[in-house]
Amino acid sequence: MFPKGKVRCAGTSLIVSLLIALGAAGAAAQSDPLPSWNEGPSKKAIVDFVDRVTKAGGPDFVPVEERIATFDNDGTLWNEQPMYVELAFSLDQVGKMAPKHPEWKTAQPFAAVLNHDMKTVAASGEEGMMKIFVATHTGMTEAQFEQTVSDWLATAKHPRFKRLYTECVFQPMLELLAYLRANGFKTYIVSGGEQGFMRPFTDKVYGVPKEQVVGTQFKSQYVMNGGGAEIDRLPGLFSLDDGPGKPENIERFIGKKPIAAFGNSDGDIQMLEWTQSNTRPNFELIVHHTDAEREYAYDRTSSMGRLNKGLDEAAAKHWVVVDMKTEWKTVFPAP
Amino acid sequence: MFPKGKVRCAGTSLIVSLLIALGAAGAAAQSDPLPSWNEGPSKKAIVDFVDRVTKAGGPDFVPVEERIATFDNDGTLWNEQPMYVELAFSLDQVGKMAPKHPEWKTAQPFAAVLNHDMKTVAASGEEGMMKIFVATHTGMTEAQFEQTVSDWLATAKHPRFKRLYTECVFQPMLELLAYLRANGFKTYIVSGGEQGFMRPFTDKVYGVPKEQVVGTQFKSQYVMNGGGAEIDRLPGLFSLDDGPGKPENIERFIGKKPIAAFGNSDGDIQMLEWTQSNTRPNFELIVHHTDAEREYAYDRTSSMGRLNKGLDEAAAKHWVVVDMKTEWKTVFPAP
Repeated sequence: MFPKGKVRCAGTSLIVSLLIALGAAGAAAQSDPLPSWNEGPSKKAIVDFVDRVTKAGGPDFVPVEERIATFDNDGTLWNEQPMYVELAFSLDQVGKMAPKHPEWKTAQPFAAVLNHDMKTVAASGEEGMMKIFVATHTGMTEAQFEQTVSDWLATAKHPRFKRLYTECVFQPMLELLAYLRANGFKTYIVSGGEQGFMRPFTDKVYGVPKEQVVGTQFKSQYVMNGGGAEIDRLPGLFSLDDGPGKPENIERFIGKKPIAAFGNSDGDIQMLEWTQSNTRPNFELIVHHTDAEREYAYDRTSSMGRLNKGLDEAAAKHWVVVDMKTEWKTVFPAP
Repeated sequence: MFPKGKVRCAGTSLIVSLLIALGAAGAAAQSDPLPSWNEGPSKKAIVDFVDRVTKAGGPDFVPVEERIATFDNDGTLWNEQPMYVELAFSLDQVGKMAPKHPEWKTAQPFAAVLNHDMKTVAASGEEGMMKIFVATHTGMTEAQFEQTVSDWLATAKHPRFKRLYTECVFQPMLELLAYLRANGFKTYIVSGGEQGFMRPFTDKVYGVPKEQVVGTQFKSQYVMNGGGAEIDRLPGLFSLDDGPGKPENIERFIGKKPIAAFGNSDGDIQMLEWTQSNTRPNFELIVHHTDAEREYAYDRTSSMGRLNKGLDEAAAKHWVVVDMKTEWKTVFPAP
């Protein structure tokens, strides 16, 4: 209908069709939209799915407004070993904040963090972790927290790869995000990570704007402080975006059931289940970390990003499982 | 740069610029983007603001990704007299559900609703209202509730205007929504109305998709029910999207401060305040219901959509106040 690589249009009402046409033209012009993916079962499944749901008049066509794709972040879009990036941030913050908290010298788990005694930190369990997250993520305004996160991300580096954490993202997944968007998908991040921790970098790094980032949330409060309006972060969990919290938040934030969902751990099972319950054609994918050489190899027993039940579910429910070692040509973007 | 009404483009990377150009071209081609607004101070203020923030290279230019506009719904986009539409729905639902609730014959405020004793219903206060909302909005799945709302909206009519409630929307505001979108704005609804009550109709009626509708929310729970995945609506308030809850939810859902906000009642004050605290150029507007003949005239003492403190704030903070009677050429869309 449109000459290749050139589109004529006569009014604003054509914007949506135009976007799709442009996307299709772009995809067609580019010989391989997923160059970092080896030819293999996962790549074939992705491309087949996208072809099916975008084929106008085809039996599996999905209108553009229903092309919702949700991505977990930790372990799906970026590295989560040897520890979640947000945990690394939180431990660093405890160190930075310690001079103002003399009581941390003796109070656990803070004393253990300050003594680099990770065994005791780990032994503090979920309760200890929550204390660390509350201490480092609340008690300031949203704007202050965003600045703190941005400053940290600008310099903190991964201990093994010696690169900024925002460079330890998965190149094949960046291509997948762009490929889906070029085909009319709206891409969301739906992650256990704290929402305000992700939003400062998702647009620049993933092309996902703040309003399409859903995460774990703390309580908040609007206040007029000395004539200035601000949102304060309060020390109480508002919503845990993990496990069943993912479909609950997808419904709350988006209000549409995804047709594609991407995860890597047991915390993503319900999001993929929910997506698979869509009466429209749908697609579910698990990134399996099998590459100790280029990244990490872990699944059923890992303390970060455990993939145990999810591996069984994937087999039972025919979810695509990416074998990182054989299916990804490259893992990280070129320096 | 582009020939009028005709746009040439060569790749997907041009999509955003193209959208803006198309929007601008569309707006230019259309001699008056706001035909239902009389030439007056409000229309002039709107057009001046949009011109300023969209003028590339101008001192007040705002990049398209920051052009966030938030709209209250009840009384701002549609009629809210003699009672909120959602209250009319809830009262109707109590009647429909009564056969399964014999206890309502004696339990207040349900008995009063069934006896059409609105004085007693009103006297039950916020607590009574919440009982009615919980009874009619929870205890079912999201999908079931959406169907119930859609069925009701398809037939229920406004008692005075004898039209579907979705036809008792304000034509000048529909034009304003479209005008902003044509100029690169992302339009959101941020309303005290329950989120699931609004989402079934906002796309069709306002051109605002579900994912851009923020409202009051009940708790919810993801469950696998006999092999089927569902989201259940639970009887507990999760978030009240009114007053300070509006900026809190704007931050939570959008993560960007609006540059334009539109309301009509005291519940919108904080949203407008928050918007005005933006360091970018910003715009705040209050719809003042001054037209008893074509719609309703009410403000400081109304039980629905009270505009008391908001009227004083608007004067003090130089918010635009629309005099519906003199500034709106028409109120509702042509039948």
